[in-house]
Amino acid sequence: MSNALKQYLNFCQDRVEKALETRLPNEKILPQKLHKAMRYCVLDGGKRMRPMLTYATANTLGINPDAVDGIACAVEFIHVYSLIHDDLPAMDDDDLRRGKPTCHVAFDEATAILTGDALQALAFEVLAHDATISASAESRLLMITTLAKASGSQGMVGGQAIDLESVGTQLNLPELENMHIHKTGALIRASVTMATLAKNNIEPAIATRLDHYAKCIGLSFQVKDDILDEESDTVTLGKTQGKDKENAKPTYPALLGMAGAKQKAQELHEKAIDNLAVFGSEADLLRDLSLYIIQRDH
Amino acid sequence: MSNALKQYLNFCQDRVEKALETRLPNEKILPQKLHKAMRYCVLDGGKRMRPMLTYATANTLGINPDAVDGIACAVEFIHVYSLIHDDLPAMDDDDLRRGKPTCHVAFDEATAILTGDALQALAFEVLAHDATISASAESRLLMITTLAKASGSQGMVGGQAIDLESVGTQLNLPELENMHIHKTGALIRASVTMATLAKNNIEPAIATRLDHYAKCIGLSFQVKDDILDEESDTVTLGKTQGKDKENAKPTYPALLGMAGAKQKAQELHEKAIDNLAVFGSEADLLRDLSLYIIQRDH
Repeated sequence: MSNALKQYLNFCQDRVEKALETRLPNEKILPQKLHKAMRYCVLDGGKRMRPMLTYATANTLGINPDAVDGIACAVEFIHVYSLIHDDLPAMDDDDLRRGKPTCHVAFDEATAILTGDALQALAFEVLAHDATISASAESRLLMITTLAKASGSQGMVGGQAIDLESVGTQLNLPELENMHIHKTGALIRASVTMATLAKNNIEPAIATRLDHYAKCIGLSFQVKDDILDEESDTVTLGKTQGKDKENAKPTYPALLGMAGAKQKAQELHEKAIDNLAVFGSEADLLRDLSLYIIQRDH
Repeated sequence: MSNALKQYLNFCQDRVEKALETRLPNEKILPQKLHKAMRYCVLDGGKRMRPMLTYATANTLGINPDAVDGIACAVEFIHVYSLIHDDLPAMDDDDLRRGKPTCHVAFDEATAILTGDALQALAFEVLAHDATISASAESRLLMITTLAKASGSQGMVGGQAIDLESVGTQLNLPELENMHIHKTGALIRASVTMATLAKNNIEPAIATRLDHYAKCIGLSFQVKDDILDEESDTVTLGKTQGKDKENAKPTYPALLGMAGAKQKAQELHEKAIDNLAVFGSEADLLRDLSLYIIQRDH
């Protein structure tokens, strides 16, 4: 990881941690168990990839980070809710997430379902209501539409449904790609798109380039995740290693071989960089981020 | 039920059924199973109490029903998602809803979780994006904030969390009331509040009266539900009768006795009517609705 990116990653992680903390309900407010669970799942964990993308896009466009704190939080709330529900016994049935027991293990299943539900509502509340988002009402509505579509039945939730149905079946490459474009790609793109919506009168061509960049790194992120699931270990990952193989889930290494999967990640990285050609050094963080995604070890 | 209300109820049910149908994703769009489950749970069922409240409030304020179709759908999407998740084995574990097998019985648990998640996202998408809602962008944002708060951790989801924690414990009357004000009351109030937000420059005093009306009928609805759960039968209810007692859930009849519970419902009805004193005959439907809520047999 470049030094500049490392510093920026730390900056974003600190920043979003504080922003999330102030937007989550206090544990002392009723219902306390639910609020405790929300804070347990959201705070102190994760790479914060999506918030960092939001901040880095804002940075590239010359937008003050203050203006996108609410966006970064909204997208992270959606991401965390999806992890909580994905980990449930009826779904992926996982015990470990971000190095901690999953929500239904630390609390109980009912609380985990409700915690996810409440975080989804909070994401939209923040986008609609948060005073720090400095965008017109019309732009906020576009952000809400973007996030709702990206997380709904034809976005993230749809991808999870396709994923569940594909367990034990042999997906081909376009089908696998379609699943990931929905399951993780849609929300990653929304992290970038919502930041572009915070920019007044952004040139549509610029927004499109950033969207294509996000689409590429969304996929490379997933290819790398599949590679790590096979090559890394549980402690480094902070989640159960080898879970995909155990669940007979389709993966890039399974379809392309390990070398083929690594080449695919590299190609997607290069395509991502190509889409940033319209920018000068102001997009260096986005470039470094794309490289980091395919080089990370967890 | 008055003839006027009966006619209006039919009008609203037909109207919202069509509005919901056009806003739900087609079953032929991928992921088909998820979209099929969304349609199965939303369409062709329920009293549509919340949409009817939205329409009846609009009617009272002289707002065309076209302008609130999207609001009626959004509130019903949230309501249906909450039923799907409440019925899950980890929550109330119920097999029957609206006279049909519940979502996790008709499909499977994972699909039921995702169906609820997708419906919540769709609710906010509709409020942010639906072309038929004739309100300013600022008013739409207030609607979204209203719905998000009403359905979040300090609204409906919070009420469900309190409910789950109270199983087997002896709540007193204020605690029981607090639970219902959150679990069902918040969304019922939002059905009315969002309709008032569709009215340009509504007098705040009028909006407050309507909100108080909604708070009263939200509670009387719950008191009556508890009475029906004890007195009615499964076929009439369309859901499993006696479930509250079986689950050792606190109820109004358990706390106040059956006669006391019926008196409580009557008092709440009268308070609801008092709050409509500022209106003439244009609020007759809201008056009839309050009476119907405490007199219905399912």
